[in-house]
Amino acid sequence: MSILSISEFVGTLAFAMSGALLGISKRLDYYGVVVLAVITALGGGMIRDVLIGNTPPMALTAPFFTIISIITAIMTIYFYQILNKHRSMIQLCDAFGLAAFTVMGASMATAYGYTSPFIVIFLALLTGTGGGTIRDIFVKEIPYVFRKEIYAVASMIGAVVYLLAYLHVTEVMAVYACFITTLTIRLLSIRFNLHLQV
Amino acid sequence: MSILSISEFVGTLAFAMSGALLGISKRLDYYGVVVLAVITALGGGMIRDVLIGNTPPMALTAPFFTIISIITAIMTIYFYQILNKHRSMIQLCDAFGLAAFTVMGASMATAYGYTSPFIVIFLALLTGTGGGTIRDIFVKEIPYVFRKEIYAVASMIGAVVYLLAYLHVTEVMAVYACFITTLTIRLLSIRFNLHLQV
Amino acid sequence: MSILSISEFVGTLAFAMSGALLGISKRLDYYGVVVLAVITALGGGMIRDVLIGNTPPMALTAPFFTIISIITAIMTIYFYQILNKHRSMIQLCDAFGLAAFTVMGASMATAYGYTSPFIVIFLALLTGTGGGTIRDIFVKEIPYVFRKEIYAVASMIGAVVYLLAYLHVTEVMAVYACFITTLTIRLLSIRFNLHLQV
Repeated sequence: MSILSISEFVGTLAFAMSGALLGISKRLDYYGVVVLAVITALGGGMIRDVLIGNTPPMALTAPFFTIISIITAIMTIYFYQILNKHRSMIQLCDAFGLAAFTVMGASMATAYGYTSPFIVIFLALLTGTGGGTIRDIFVKEIPYVFRKEIYAVASMIGAVVYLLAYLHVTEVMAVYACFITTLTIRLLSIRFNLHLQV
Repeated sequence: MSILSISEFVGTLAFAMSGALLGISKRLDYYGVVVLAVITALGGGMIRDVLIGNTPPMALTAPFFTIISIITAIMTIYFYQILNKHRSMIQLCDAFGLAAFTVMGASMATAYGYTSPFIVIFLALLTGTGGGTIRDIFVKEIPYVFRKEIYAVASMIGAVVYLLAYLHVTEVMAVYACFITTLTIRLLSIRFNLHLQV
Repeated sequence: MSILSISEFVGTLAFAMSGALLGISKRLDYYGVVVLAVITALGGGMIRDVLIGNTPPMALTAPFFTIISIITAIMTIYFYQILNKHRSMIQLCDAFGLAAFTVMGASMATAYGYTSPFIVIFLALLTGTGGGTIRDIFVKEIPYVFRKEIYAVASMIGAVVYLLAYLHVTEVMAVYACFITTLTIRLLSIRFNLHLQV
């Protein structure tokens, strides 16, 4: 397994967990908690697939990560007390997820033949941050990604790095450069509590 | 007219009515009330159609039920005082709607050649509960279906029954088995006030 | 440049500005304000494109207006104090935007061969009011267009006029008749503070 696959896996776990934890704290029932977990982990990718005409979306035709998210949600319900104490660890996993999902969005763009910076950044951002945005709207929160910290910006810079490396070096290089860039910026912003307040 | 067509009709009325009633209670204007009714009745099916690439969605190309929903919304505005007193009757009609819409989602899946349990359940759930979910989000409520009672679960079990009967008996059998299962579970959960609280 | 292109431009500015102003008042960060501006200006058109199977949507493949919206959002952040004092001027520009976007939606319908009144009205409404609806949901407001004034109704009547002129006169005539009708109704409703309260 490559570092990217592992991060994708870890990221899906972290995204699903963040959805489930929020759902539990909002007193949703089992079904609501599971849906919120799935939407957080897969919602961004589903919207991306619909926008580029890749229907039915991967989340339905290759539901491995969907099933992982459902299992994660159920585990989160049972181990809520323990998990709730390790929020900073979940935030760390989430950073790996953001990086892995950003790579997936950017490489999906180039795989479909789009090399316009605009589309590459858009799909990377959507894949990386779309799920969390829908999660927050579903439970009546103004999306976290619109309010706090360097989250979307990490994904955006990662996408730019991906495209530059893709066009001028190799695709493999692009994948790693994007991953490392997004992860580093995100971790630094958590560590130093950086914001972009207007 | 088959029992299914009648239920689809009754269900559309009930779904549209529930959207209109919520819209009126939130003090929306005429346009808002009508949109909320249409979204409740047809939103789930529209998202389903977009996800499977069936564009433009049936709600646009065959707008019979859309027009029914608009008329229902207008009637609901004029008979608000009376309808508001019969909420338990509307809840009953809604159960028929849930069952009919679950069947529509599941049979749309198999009609498109998908027999993976995952996709069948997903499309059944989306058709049955998607409209109500969007309705609640539009008026700043945490979706009802995420919080209360055996609602989505009835649809989910119905979809499983559909698929089993579709694969092992006949499609007609699948339609009726799914319809009766979903309806029975939903009615029992209303009668005995069953929940799935985490 | 035709009067329509100018209005489309002015409308995009006004829509993006209204998104950015709302985002700033909700204390979003830079990223949130920009996303809200883009969604307000382009969200309706994107949903329209997805529904009619025109993927990837124009907002991605021809991102001129997307970039205009991003620039508008940044300018709005810097000139917030000044712009915030000219809300009535922005509302005026918004009326031009509503008219131009209604024309775009209606003519997109006929360009795709749809002349059913239902689809023409639906796509006109979605293009004209969809972005503002998503904008409000993203920041936990019940959509403005559901609550106040003759806004959607102006777009709806404009679409009917478009279709009648398109079928019985010429397409160019339809464009202007729709534009002028929508704009006039909207301006009159602002001037005389007309509502459609249930």
